Amino acid sequence: MHALLTDLYELTMAAGFVAAGKERDTATFELFVRRLPRNRRLLIAAGLAQALEYLTALEFTADEIAYLRGLPQFAGAPEEFFGYLKHFRFTGDVFAVPEGTPMFAGEPILTVRAPIIEAQIVETFLLSAIGFQTMIASKAARIVAAAAGRGVIEFGTRRAHSPGAGTLAARAAYIGGCNGTSNTEAGFRFGLPVYGTCAHSWVQSFPKEEEAFRALKQLLGPATVQLIDTYDTLEGARRAAAVGGPIWGVRIDSGDLAALSRQVRTILDQAGMSEAKIMVSGDLTEQRVVELVAAGAPIDALGVGTDLATSSDAPSLGVVYKLVEIESGGETRPTMKRSAEKATLPGAKQIFRHADHDVIGCCWECVGCGDIGPVEALLRPVMIKGQVLGCVPTAAQARERALAAIAALPESVNAEYPVIISDALRELSEKTKT
Amino acid sequence: MHALLTDLYELTMAAGFVAAGKERDTATFELFVRRLPRNRRLLIAAGLAQALEYLTALEFTADEIAYLRGLPQFAGAPEEFFGYLKHFRFTGDVFAVPEGTPMFAGEPILTVRAPIIEAQIVETFLLSAIGFQTMIASKAARIVAAAAGRGVIEFGTRRAHSPGAGTLAARAAYIGGCNGTSNTEAGFRFGLPVYGTCAHSWVQSFPKEEEAFRALKQLLGPATVQLIDTYDTLEGARRAAAVGGPIWGVRIDSGDLAALSRQVRTILDQAGMSEAKIMVSGDLTEQRVVELVAAGAPIDALGVGTDLATSSDAPSLGVVYKLVEIESGGETRPTMKRSAEKATLPGAKQIFRHADHDVIGCCWECVGCGDIGPVEALLRPVMIKGQVLGCVPTAAQARERALAAIAALPESVNAEYPVIISDALRELSEKTKT
Repeated sequence: MHALLTDLYELTMAAGFVAAGKERDTATFELFVRRLPRNRRLLIAAGLAQALEYLTALEFTADEIAYLRGLPQFAGAPEEFFGYLKHFRFTGDVFAVPEGTPMFAGEPILTVRAPIIEAQIVETFLLSAIGFQTMIASKAARIVAAAAGRGVIEFGTRRAHSPGAGTLAARAAYIGGCNGTSNTEAGFRFGLPVYGTCAHSWVQSFPKEEEAFRALKQLLGPATVQLIDTYDTLEGARRAAAVGGPIWGVRIDSGDLAALSRQVRTILDQAGMSEAKIMVSGDLTEQRVVELVAAGAPIDALGVGTDLATSSDAPSLGVVYKLVEIESGGETRPTMKRSAEKATLPGAKQIFRHADHDVIGCCWECVGCGDIGPVEALLRPVMIKGQVLGCVPTAAQARERALAAIAALPESVNAEYPVIISDALRELSEKTKT
Repeated sequence: MHALLTDLYELTMAAGFVAAGKERDTATFELFVRRLPRNRRLLIAAGLAQALEYLTALEFTADEIAYLRGLPQFAGAPEEFFGYLKHFRFTGDVFAVPEGTPMFAGEPILTVRAPIIEAQIVETFLLSAIGFQTMIASKAARIVAAAAGRGVIEFGTRRAHSPGAGTLAARAAYIGGCNGTSNTEAGFRFGLPVYGTCAHSWVQSFPKEEEAFRALKQLLGPATVQLIDTYDTLEGARRAAAVGGPIWGVRIDSGDLAALSRQVRTILDQAGMSEAKIMVSGDLTEQRVVELVAAGAPIDALGVGTDLATSSDAPSLGVVYKLVEIESGGETRPTMKRSAEKATLPGAKQIFRHADHDVIGCCWECVGCGDIGPVEALLRPVMIKGQVLGCVPTAAQARERALAAIAALPESVNAEYPVIISDALRELSEKTKT
């Protein structure tokens, strides 16, 4: 599954490791975000379940190996490399923070310790799987906070970067605190709550708007959400009121949502439908949500699509996967990059989360030695020798973790949250540099 | 395949169409971009091959139907709806512009004419499939133009919105004019040229940089690209020169690329390696490419990742899918939305491309009646009654089309390109409004 879904250089290096007799070297790579994107104070880790699924299923088919053999880059590859691919399985160890954990720049989200070839081949997929869902969960958390208690439904599959990305965006948005999604596949695969009633084409497909409203109410009963802006929103609201309740409510998808929601609220109330709710949608962004809430618009729920499913104000996350340690012939050697602005810290690490700050230390440091108060070591073993440990938490469990953890964060998270490098790690770094 | 990869409302509407006895109504939907994103003067259509693949393979499994049956939204759905899903296949007609065609705002990229339930269910996937690849191909065309003849390789899978999106981004980037990709799966599935040699971890995995260089050269021979910025770029260049040629060249992935490429060029030339080329990479953006080219940096090829694979300056495309016509009981009724700022033009359309302007007209208007010079009708039948017509062009053919079409565009494309609504379409619109 997806064995070729990797950058070619991972595979040329794999051939090179075989050629250089390095297959038995063990490498430790750490996946982390170098710098937070603009508008982000923290990240919500997500995507681990898909990463583990990939590592478990990964193998090369005969066709895939034949394809590689035909590429010019493998003309000089040793024959044993192709035999190696034939029996390839991921046999390494993985440590990771649970999905739904708030994270800061420089903190490893996931650590892979495996034969160097394996650790290298999985780089590209892991970066994309963890990076994307983490980006979306982080964006979702902001939109949910902006909505200040109103429900937020993820609506963005049609504008996601490929249909498959939409399904993963829905999952990540849910972990970040959304109430559910319009993406049916995400409901089916991940058990997310799914929402949806009708589009403008439903209304247009009937010669008269009220016929469309009646037919929808007949189908969905109290779950009906009448879409009232196909022709004229206030006229639509009156027609929906004429068709009557009990219905969940109405949706407005265009125009001045603050003003319209007030007028529609009045129309519904005057028709004795004060129980009917108002949902808004239509190119909503985090900023628009902030404004609507500030304006005190009588809105009960928001459908957010493009801005959420593409994290449009910060549409990429600078996630990297760096070699920090090599074990070869019984000797362990920490490694680091010294490239301009891209330098890394050496050695396998652990994150120690205190009440109001984090410490990034060496993986062998003890948890909270000499510290006051509870300390949590965030990186936990999730896979040993290619086998997943215990149960992988569901999206709903990850969401609960995220909501609780976000609520527990100190105020200082809105400034520069203190992430401290431990003395031991600083020493190791100085030693490795020279 | 992917039957649930759609917004839930498509399926609730489908149940509603069955309940309302509308299964036999035929609907025509058009997929287009309402407004071009900022920084874009045109789009390059892409994604049709994946759209056709989806329409051909689409069916519901028993598990998927059982899942829907269990959702509260289908509690009131007629039993025949579930029977309908069991035998569901897409049986409609599709008209589309060929992949690689330059497109402007408001012009349909794809038209679906099918039983209304079918046309509705496929909306979400089609929007995402065509929208995403069109967005990336359009961005790629800009970066390729900025590179002014230097090779551009797509490097972005690790930062793409999910691993699968990376493979499709690679395909679209190639159609937009890139020379190839680092994504191996894209090479395997779509026949794209693939590139890649080694990462920093390769260099770090050897105790000494020159050992890494020697081992890579032994593996790849004249295709070797030495990555020289792991520790110190100029020192790296000297070591690469000491290991010697013939090699393809070197890659610089960090630092001041314009200054470093000049210094590295000198080092290579003085070592008698004037044939060795210089590739640069490292968070390159379209803007950085413009600057490097303007600075006259001695660069032969560029690897562009995040900015290309996420279209980071315009990370979503406002692609919509709108009902324009309903055929019911032998009668054809054009339809349109009148929502604020979201109004649409009614009726099935055609795009007539002239040498220096486009005309959007009704689909029944004749091509170039009374016009001077050649006129091309861009929308062509690609699927009739669920069957793909002829051969679907390859990515390489789409790329050729794009490169030729871009070269043939008049200068005026850099201003507001004239897209005119035909008199017949204008009349139909007035008539439908009232």
